[in-house]
Amino acid sequence: MPRTEDEVWLQELSWPDFEAYLESADNPTVVVPIGSTEQHGPHLPLGVDAYQAKDIAEGIAERADVVAAPPIWYGDAEHHMAFPGTIALSSETVISVLSDVYSSLARHGVENVLTVNGHRLANLPAIDIASKRVREEHPEVFFATVDLVRIGVRSHNELRDGDPEDGMHGGEFETSFIMHKHPDLVDEEEFVTETHDGWTRFTSNDYVSMDDSVGTASVSADWGEDDLGHHGDPTKASAEKGETLYEDIVDNAIEFLEDLYEHRSGDGSIGLSY
Amino acid sequence: MPRTEDEVWLQELSWPDFEAYLESADNPTVVVPIGSTEQHGPHLPLGVDAYQAKDIAEGIAERADVVAAPPIWYGDAEHHMAFPGTIALSSETVISVLSDVYSSLARHGVENVLTVNGHRLANLPAIDIASKRVREEHPEVFFATVDLVRIGVRSHNELRDGDPEDGMHGGEFETSFIMHKHPDLVDEEEFVTETHDGWTRFTSNDYVSMDDSVGTASVSADWGEDDLGHHGDPTKASAEKGETLYEDIVDNAIEFLEDLYEHRSGDGSIGLSY
Amino acid sequence: MPRTEDEVWLQELSWPDFEAYLESADNPTVVVPIGSTEQHGPHLPLGVDAYQAKDIAEGIAERADVVAAPPIWYGDAEHHMAFPGTIALSSETVISVLSDVYSSLARHGVENVLTVNGHRLANLPAIDIASKRVREEHPEVFFATVDLVRIGVRSHNELRDGDPEDGMHGGEFETSFIMHKHPDLVDEEEFVTETHDGWTRFTSNDYVSMDDSVGTASVSADWGEDDLGHHGDPTKASAEKGETLYEDIVDNAIEFLEDLYEHRSGDGSIGLSY
Amino acid sequence: MPRTEDEVWLQELSWPDFEAYLESADNPTVVVPIGSTEQHGPHLPLGVDAYQAKDIAEGIAERADVVAAPPIWYGDAEHHMAFPGTIALSSETVISVLSDVYSSLARHGVENVLTVNGHRLANLPAIDIASKRVREEHPEVFFATVDLVRIGVRSHNELRDGDPEDGMHGGEFETSFIMHKHPDLVDEEEFVTETHDGWTRFTSNDYVSMDDSVGTASVSADWGEDDLGHHGDPTKASAEKGETLYEDIVDNAIEFLEDLYEHRSGDGSIGLSY
Amino acid sequence: MPRTEDEVWLQELSWPDFEAYLESADNPTVVVPIGSTEQHGPHLPLGVDAYQAKDIAEGIAERADVVAAPPIWYGDAEHHMAFPGTIALSSETVISVLSDVYSSLARHGVENVLTVNGHRLANLPAIDIASKRVREEHPEVFFATVDLVRIGVRSHNELRDGDPEDGMHGGEFETSFIMHKHPDLVDEEEFVTETHDGWTRFTSNDYVSMDDSVGTASVSADWGEDDLGHHGDPTKASAEKGETLYEDIVDNAIEFLEDLYEHRSGDGSIGLSY
Amino acid sequence: MPRTEDEVWLQELSWPDFEAYLESADNPTVVVPIGSTEQHGPHLPLGVDAYQAKDIAEGIAERADVVAAPPIWYGDAEHHMAFPGTIALSSETVISVLSDVYSSLARHGVENVLTVNGHRLANLPAIDIASKRVREEHPEVFFATVDLVRIGVRSHNELRDGDPEDGMHGGEFETSFIMHKHPDLVDEEEFVTETHDGWTRFTSNDYVSMDDSVGTASVSADWGEDDLGHHGDPTKASAEKGETLYEDIVDNAIEFLEDLYEHRSGDGSIGLSY
Repeated sequence: MPRTEDEVWLQELSWPDFEAYLESADNPTVVVPIGSTEQHGPHLPLGVDAYQAKDIAEGIAERADVVAAPPIWYGDAEHHMAFPGTIALSSETVISVLSDVYSSLARHGVENVLTVNGHRLANLPAIDIASKRVREEHPEVFFATVDLVRIGVRSHNELRDGDPEDGMHGGEFETSFIMHKHPDLVDEEEFVTETHDGWTRFTSNDYVSMDDSVGTASVSADWGEDDLGHHGDPTKASAEKGETLYEDIVDNAIEFLEDLYEHRSGDGSIGLSY
Repeated sequence: MPRTEDEVWLQELSWPDFEAYLESADNPTVVVPIGSTEQHGPHLPLGVDAYQAKDIAEGIAERADVVAAPPIWYGDAEHHMAFPGTIALSSETVISVLSDVYSSLARHGVENVLTVNGHRLANLPAIDIASKRVREEHPEVFFATVDLVRIGVRSHNELRDGDPEDGMHGGEFETSFIMHKHPDLVDEEEFVTETHDGWTRFTSNDYVSMDDSVGTASVSADWGEDDLGHHGDPTKASAEKGETLYEDIVDNAIEFLEDLYEHRSGDGSIGLSY
Repeated sequence: MPRTEDEVWLQELSWPDFEAYLESADNPTVVVPIGSTEQHGPHLPLGVDAYQAKDIAEGIAERADVVAAPPIWYGDAEHHMAFPGTIALSSETVISVLSDVYSSLARHGVENVLTVNGHRLANLPAIDIASKRVREEHPEVFFATVDLVRIGVRSHNELRDGDPEDGMHGGEFETSFIMHKHPDLVDEEEFVTETHDGWTRFTSNDYVSMDDSVGTASVSADWGEDDLGHHGDPTKASAEKGETLYEDIVDNAIEFLEDLYEHRSGDGSIGLSY
Repeated sequence: MPRTEDEVWLQELSWPDFEAYLESADNPTVVVPIGSTEQHGPHLPLGVDAYQAKDIAEGIAERADVVAAPPIWYGDAEHHMAFPGTIALSSETVISVLSDVYSSLARHGVENVLTVNGHRLANLPAIDIASKRVREEHPEVFFATVDLVRIGVRSHNELRDGDPEDGMHGGEFETSFIMHKHPDLVDEEEFVTETHDGWTRFTSNDYVSMDDSVGTASVSADWGEDDLGHHGDPTKASAEKGETLYEDIVDNAIEFLEDLYEHRSGDGSIGLSY
Repeated sequence: MPRTEDEVWLQELSWPDFEAYLESADNPTVVVPIGSTEQHGPHLPLGVDAYQAKDIAEGIAERADVVAAPPIWYGDAEHHMAFPGTIALSSETVISVLSDVYSSLARHGVENVLTVNGHRLANLPAIDIASKRVREEHPEVFFATVDLVRIGVRSHNELRDGDPEDGMHGGEFETSFIMHKHPDLVDEEEFVTETHDGWTRFTSNDYVSMDDSVGTASVSADWGEDDLGHHGDPTKASAEKGETLYEDIVDNAIEFLEDLYEHRSGDGSIGLSY
Repeated sequence: MPRTEDEVWLQELSWPDFEAYLESADNPTVVVPIGSTEQHGPHLPLGVDAYQAKDIAEGIAERADVVAAPPIWYGDAEHHMAFPGTIALSSETVISVLSDVYSSLARHGVENVLTVNGHRLANLPAIDIASKRVREEHPEVFFATVDLVRIGVRSHNELRDGDPEDGMHGGEFETSFIMHKHPDLVDEEEFVTETHDGWTRFTSNDYVSMDDSVGTASVSADWGEDDLGHHGDPTKASAEKGETLYEDIVDNAIEFLEDLYEHRSGDGSIGLSY
């Protein structure tokens, strides 16, 4: 295979390169990064979620020697439309984009599709629905989703210095991540702590630990006049913390992929429980 | 208001009854139960998820003196279609049904819509998407979702006797719930322990506690020839456990509603953080 | 088959129970009740149409020894949204729900699907479209629709005491039906005669007999300020009349099913003529 | 108004002509003909339903001095796809076409839209749904549907010589109609009587008189190898019968329109009863 | 084949006639005319685009001895809704109508589908999308589109007397065409020259010759108060010019069909290059 | 405005940066690049179309001092699915993505949206439809589309050394472009001339000059066993030619934008002519 190890992006490969990958790989796998273009406070760029998805996807692809599909920069972000620059796809559009991408990969013989979601809770419903839909037509393909928080629960808990109730949008973790990977896109002079009182014990801002909770629907009208847009404390952020978080997430994804390959080479029965 | 306390179901009220409720209530609220008609092993009826949603909704409505909408018996259940009797709505259909119901309630002046989901993870994406969609058009209405597991994390952990990895579909908890509320629909002679090896540390069957996890797409083709359909250990179930679980969930929902009413009577700003 | 005769509801059966039914029945048949949650005047509950569909479905299932699917409580009711408590699914949503339910039943091997419509003209277009759509994919399945008025033309004509032009929404017949099956949900003190002048000979309020007619589109804006919502004369209603109507409709449906079974065991050619 | 009486077709008018009509007419009304392109046996052309709709629309427009929109030649005809030449729009497509046409007319200030349906039962669900949908957005516009059978119940019954159970697709009535208006498109040498046994008393082929009935879903697979496609007895047809039928239907439509105009000039309350 | 040469319209044939055509023709081909009902200035009727499509389709069908499907009178015309009488289908509706028509023809064994578009740029996106969609499912069918301008570039350039920047909506060419084929529908007393300054060299009104250009989205709000609706100079029109244009377009289409037949009888590989 | 001239990408700006741009710019404009991920022969990467769109968008944004939205890497590419690595969005999905992006920009007050299309004919129908749809809701926003071929007709003609009939997919021009901007992604050892006989004079492979033409629908089944996927002659390519092409296209786009700004500051009437 002429493709060298650092050529991980599908868009940089020719079709014979990709064909060679499919034919030579024991477990043909493609990573699909999806983020969002949405406000993350005055100190971070609009592309935070997409950068995170793209960076993690690239890290996984490099270390697992798999291919990464071109990044999907846009996601389900209507609830951030109060801030200029946010681009909102409807949930249906996100489902359609992912379904078409997944389906194309499945038709080419990709066996495992690993979506990397940089946009937390907001994209997950669409990813879930698209994955199930395409997998019904291609049951031979395994669809898994790496969400940056869900796959890194332990890491987030270990690294956290701030109050879990401070929130996680443009706060300690996302700021750290971008400081590590894109320091030039962070404006440290705009670091402001924005916290919000939890108003019930069921509506915690801590998306890492799980306690009794009630789901609520956030929309673009929820923002106050003076809100800066982020939720959390960027002053607790550091490039080091971002690096550790990044490495932990990639490590976990690699561990998962290895387990998946081994599992699929076995009898293949995959439990489901809901 | 002529409506007595035990008349909680919208379908039993006349339109002037419901109008009187809307006019007299400080916080006009409707509870919307949605379940699924899908296999739950040989010992439980196909309607388990819908019964749970209906029963919890009724409990909330009675104790909070609010109204419950007629139950939605069907949900997103394609992944159980391998078993006779399962009825699968597509995700899109569930989104449409909920959007239409939510929108109708909002147009009548209902201020809070509390969806009770008896079908765990599978219905949540559709509920999320429908809630956000309708709330964009009706930002004055608050949409919240009581999922039986998410609102009862502490209760599930306290009550559990079985191995968390046994799974939670027709297992210890759902069997207990139905034994408490619909003992005639449980066939104790068919109690069989069905457990599944967790195949990675990221794909735990424990949906209560949260650890590092990767999402996976379950489909109708995932079942083995001899699977009985449930995941978990019904022999650990008891009506007493079901009663405690039921009471805890209703208690939590009541506590949430009270906090919500108080919060909305304040400045109304509701933080959002993803 | 362990299922006893009075266990007719799918939601009360386990999947092996339903599998046993499918395997043992000569003509596996499922009845699908669909109604509406909509105003029916001050004397009747919002659930009238759904109760009627549910009751008739149950009666058919018990006497024909077939299975009834969980009731669909909501229908195409936008034209009643002027009254609080009405829940309106769009026509498209009703088509989607029915298509998914029909398709699931067909995939399990059900041979005959009998929809029972308690919501008269308003649900029929959606039922028609969904039935044709699913039958194109499953031509081996027979789809039939029992509409409470259409299957009971003779019975309605025989029983009627009021003026045919009084109308049939919450009038003599629906009030009688609910008085027979759910007397506690009828408020006889609110019985008011609401009649409407027929304004052309083509727009009769008599939906039983057929004369020259022009179809018209009713919408939520059609109601006047003081309208009570029902059309017809509840003072002509009685539980006895309701019982006769109920029995006649169930009798007719049973007669139809028997003819259908016999017909399908023959050469199977089914004429179509429009 | 420069438009002369015989210029009834919208496609023949310039936009100032149509503007002049809208401004000068007391009751601006447009007739919308929709048919189907589908087999009608070996003796009739594929366009029978569209010709009927077009001819009736033209007759109404001429005599009522209103405008007729260009004909929609295609309809919901999947159940005739077994025969070459049939063109089938899906029900959803028919709904979309009609909704767009209706909505355009409403936006121009047309007050009454009269759809003329030449395709009997098969197009009616789509017409119903489209009419209600557009009227919700334009409640000031009145939508009515002239179906050739429904508006002509008395006329059909009076004219009929054949057995009502012979059926009505390419039979006595449709053949007479085309013999009257398009004699060159009728092939009398191919007249064959095709009748079908009614297999239950609920599935009559008589679509004129109404008795106890059960709806059934016809599909393209229902046809037998040797079927000629029509249902009924063309040998009972005559141009005279077609002329009477045509005149009666147009007369009735004119009578309806006059009643409608008078009614709308009154208090405008239009009863609805289902 | 009993069909005579001048019977070209599908709606005039019986199903056995069309079956005979399919069986006897070496290259079963159907022409599908689609136009638009939209304003074309004060001197031309609303149906100009549809008449042109219909006339060209008829000409092709007569001379190539193929069949023409019933005309689609309506198209994508939202951008003309400022003028009374325009009927606008949404792009999605046009896609749906064409997809259903194409698909029906493909299922009957038609090998070549030739769409004749009388509505220039506005219908082409929908035709493109529908053709590709249906051809994916029926790769054995060839879909081609005759657009009146694109197929007649040379003819337009040769015939033109006016300034290319005058525009082409109801101008020299369309007026000439209708003067030739439907002289009674042209009002020569209303001939007014309406020209528009080209405002960049990339937004020429000359749709015939191709130079550097930028696409722009026209909408219904683009019209000025006093606009007459057409773009171009009808005083340059003549019936002779219309006849030449008509003959050239039909000639070209016939030449194309002959090349297509020859090509398909060869190895069948059809290059594609975008 | 803190944004420096080389910060052109929306994803690199914070929301206050973008707000500052909107407030300070005389003509707030955003460029939206859309390409495709699809095979371009063995010598070019799958991302060619997206790179071209991205590069041109960046060039325009830098020189016109406007903002570029994150690139859309995927397009309407079903007709290239025969080759591994191609990712195909349906036309409907492309319409949805663009509509959502356009609508978000319009809601933030962007006045001009300039789509840069790197995927030639295949994306144009979707861009057209989305632009018209969103502009109907936001008539104050101007939507224009820079297609690399259409805006550079003169440049292509001047630069061309090969035969126009060689085709333009991965040929002389696209290869030159990538050699100029991404030389590391071009594999010159794989340069092969792939030409296709034009099979009629109406189906030329020359997409630059316009002559009489008939549109045809290309699909994934059109490819031959041994096709390499590109159409054209990469041996005619050079980085210099790519640079000239790139500069000409950006120059033209800048000229167009300046004309547009001037035009919009005038009376704003924009002619439309189809």
